[in-house]
Amino acid sequence: MTRADRLERRRAFGARVRALRETRGFSQETLAECAGIHRTYVGSVERGERNVALDNIHALADALGVSVRELFDK
Amino acid sequence: MTRADRLERRRAFGARVRALRETRGFSQETLAECAGIHRTYVGSVERGERNVALDNIHALADALGVSVRELFDK
Repeated sequence: MTRADRLERRRAFGARVRALRETRGFSQETLAECAGIHRTYVGSVERGERNVALDNIHALADALGVSVRELFDK
Repeated sequence: MTRADRLERRRAFGARVRALRETRGFSQETLAECAGIHRTYVGSVERGERNVALDNIHALADALGVSVRELFDK
């Protein structure tokens, strides 16, 4: 897996989080509060800048009301 | 999400990695080499001790020949 692959997959994850958040009509602030993580962190996740780990992946899925599987396109 | 929830989900992830690895007849060493990560790290992931992040989640899925979704039970 190349660095480009990693960045592309981080971006895909972030784009999915953003799309689900917007579908729910949540602001980044609301999602951050529901997930118990910082608002600026949510922004950087959505921009694909973060190597998000399991605990926060689960927290985001819970806050968005989806299963973890739904945060990945395959 | 409580600390117990987080630990339970890390354990569930690790158990799934182990089950898929064993189904393929891979040793921890083989999986580690294929995924480009350290053998002792694979062991600690399988024991549920690690808050594994996106890059390594993808590397493990690729090495196991599964989609990322298959690493999660829901």
